[in-house]
Amino acid sequence: MKRRQFMQTAAAGAAASTAIAMPAIAQSNPEVKWRMTSSFPKSLDTIYGGGETLAKTVSDLTDGKFQIQVFAAGEIVPGLQALDAVSNNTVEMCHTVAYYYVGKDPTFAIPSCVPFGLNTRQQNAWLSNGGGGELFADFFKKYNVHAIQAGCTGAQMGGWFRKEIKSVADLQGMKMRIAGIAGAVLQKLGVVPQQLAGGDIYPALEKGTIDGAEWVGPYDDEKLGFSKVAPYYYYPGFWEGGPAVHAFINIEKWNALPKAYQAALAAAGAVATNSMTAKYDVQNPPALKRLVAAGTQLRPFPQDVMEACLKASNEVYAEISAKNPDFKKAIEAMAAFRSDQYLWWQVAELSFDVFQVRTRAR
Amino acid sequence: MKRRQFMQTAAAGAAASTAIAMPAIAQSNPEVKWRMTSSFPKSLDTIYGGGETLAKTVSDLTDGKFQIQVFAAGEIVPGLQALDAVSNNTVEMCHTVAYYYVGKDPTFAIPSCVPFGLNTRQQNAWLSNGGGGELFADFFKKYNVHAIQAGCTGAQMGGWFRKEIKSVADLQGMKMRIAGIAGAVLQKLGVVPQQLAGGDIYPALEKGTIDGAEWVGPYDDEKLGFSKVAPYYYYPGFWEGGPAVHAFINIEKWNALPKAYQAALAAAGAVATNSMTAKYDVQNPPALKRLVAAGTQLRPFPQDVMEACLKASNEVYAEISAKNPDFKKAIEAMAAFRSDQYLWWQVAELSFDVFQVRTRAR
Repeated sequence: MKRRQFMQTAAAGAAASTAIAMPAIAQSNPEVKWRMTSSFPKSLDTIYGGGETLAKTVSDLTDGKFQIQVFAAGEIVPGLQALDAVSNNTVEMCHTVAYYYVGKDPTFAIPSCVPFGLNTRQQNAWLSNGGGGELFADFFKKYNVHAIQAGCTGAQMGGWFRKEIKSVADLQGMKMRIAGIAGAVLQKLGVVPQQLAGGDIYPALEKGTIDGAEWVGPYDDEKLGFSKVAPYYYYPGFWEGGPAVHAFINIEKWNALPKAYQAALAAAGAVATNSMTAKYDVQNPPALKRLVAAGTQLRPFPQDVMEACLKASNEVYAEISAKNPDFKKAIEAMAAFRSDQYLWWQVAELSFDVFQVRTRAR
Repeated sequence: MKRRQFMQTAAAGAAASTAIAMPAIAQSNPEVKWRMTSSFPKSLDTIYGGGETLAKTVSDLTDGKFQIQVFAAGEIVPGLQALDAVSNNTVEMCHTVAYYYVGKDPTFAIPSCVPFGLNTRQQNAWLSNGGGGELFADFFKKYNVHAIQAGCTGAQMGGWFRKEIKSVADLQGMKMRIAGIAGAVLQKLGVVPQQLAGGDIYPALEKGTIDGAEWVGPYDDEKLGFSKVAPYYYYPGFWEGGPAVHAFINIEKWNALPKAYQAALAAAGAVATNSMTAKYDVQNPPALKRLVAAGTQLRPFPQDVMEACLKASNEVYAEISAKNPDFKKAIEAMAAFRSDQYLWWQVAELSFDVFQVRTRAR
């Protein structure tokens, strides 16, 4: 296979480039070839594309001297093993979402997003300038990685359901494709969380093996055709108000890079972050229109469901915090930041947006 | 003066560097020294700081080979002559807000912000991925500049007033420090717009020469001490829902840069954009708390004022469009993009934010 050949060549190149990159001062513009394993399939072009944007930007910034080859989930390692592959130096870096690794430590959820956490801009601000970045840099070091934000999807949708949800009672016994901390929260209200890969969701919904499934938002969801088998499309995805996507870099490889290449990766992260959110923002509205035109029934989660989920989330946070000091420290820092953020957000931002929505047709 | 000496040296360096940079292929990492004139004083550290972030990032990305020296408003040219200084090649680039140049052509307002325009994320998405960037690139070429977004303040406040505004009737005869298209809009409702530099606002409010003044938001406004002389602090600044800040670069200088240096400026723009918004987001909440603790009276603009201003804005847009095809094309493109954006925004983003605000204390 061509792909395999390339991988071998790239691996050899990467090994060679490490040797060159080590004495950073000796040569300021060495040829460096890295591999980046993505947690996403190419079909999710917007989120997978964030990794490609990052790689292309680094190449552009270094006159092609620093090349990062992007591999889709499964080409080198499965999507959910991306972090391990970087920790153990199988690849130099990955493009992933930190919350995929809550099985290692639930603290991993917080730098991406947690139920009723921060919105997109607040998460960006917290990670870059609000103390979140430093807090998680220490945590990530335990896993031998340096983190750079490289994307955000914007607030996600709550998912697709075969039947209407009219109150908390309707959650009892509901089999829903949802994972991680959000799954633990919904479980407290009687939901039976299911783990399914993207491609398995449609047949499961069609057969009624599951009653509902969350995915991303209109642009990505439309591709999987859920509206045909689960017509009720709920919002908001309160467990993903502003999910950050990260690049994780093996920390020895990071430290060995010339300063300008470190700067290139950091700046490319900002480019990828803006570009991913902008692409979702541009592509979600027409996708939403098409979905609604095709019969999708848009529904807000009932207020009692939202309230019960908020209460359950705080219980889950207290339970994890009781036994995990890293989680406790991070969730408390997030909650304090969130309280200040929404104090201000409700003033200029929210009042502007609410008026704009109300008068949209004028 | 040291500063003057530096300026002469820098100017000589810039002239020399142009000669070096021209044959881009011949030398890929030439030494380049540029000057960037800012439209902002250093006291506005967050918005002025966006220019410094941009310059530092470019230096980091090029191993110090591409140096941009930032000059505060007035050091080379006055703040509002920044664009002219770039057009006529007095300096290579500037850091400014496009709406300062509505006197040349009102179209300049639209790439920064217009009353009831786009919010921060929507403006970013429009300029980077929604067609706005290409539209304005053509327009800016008429002024001999290449534009890169390099900041956004987030939604601004509506300003400080000596008396409460209870209805549209209270706007009649009100002398308010406000400029540009927003001034034209408020004039339709009886406001008498005044142009005053930042430092002149406080004494004018104190003496009652003006009745109100808009500036930026809590963090910047606090420094000027308005709360002591005009206790009513209104929101939202509906004329600045998501004001983009730009770097304008002399187009011949831009074209002569090596590709990697162009990439460095573009990526540094993304870094500056994120960093400026994040800094405002982090610093506005504590400033707002301090202002309110010191007696500031927070007030939303009455709904009839918002409604009347929306109507007046649409009238102003129609009047300008009737005689200015560039403005017509751009305002119609913005309005179409806005309509789609808020169709989607009201679903996941707004419902998430509204719930978060309502349950903030829990």
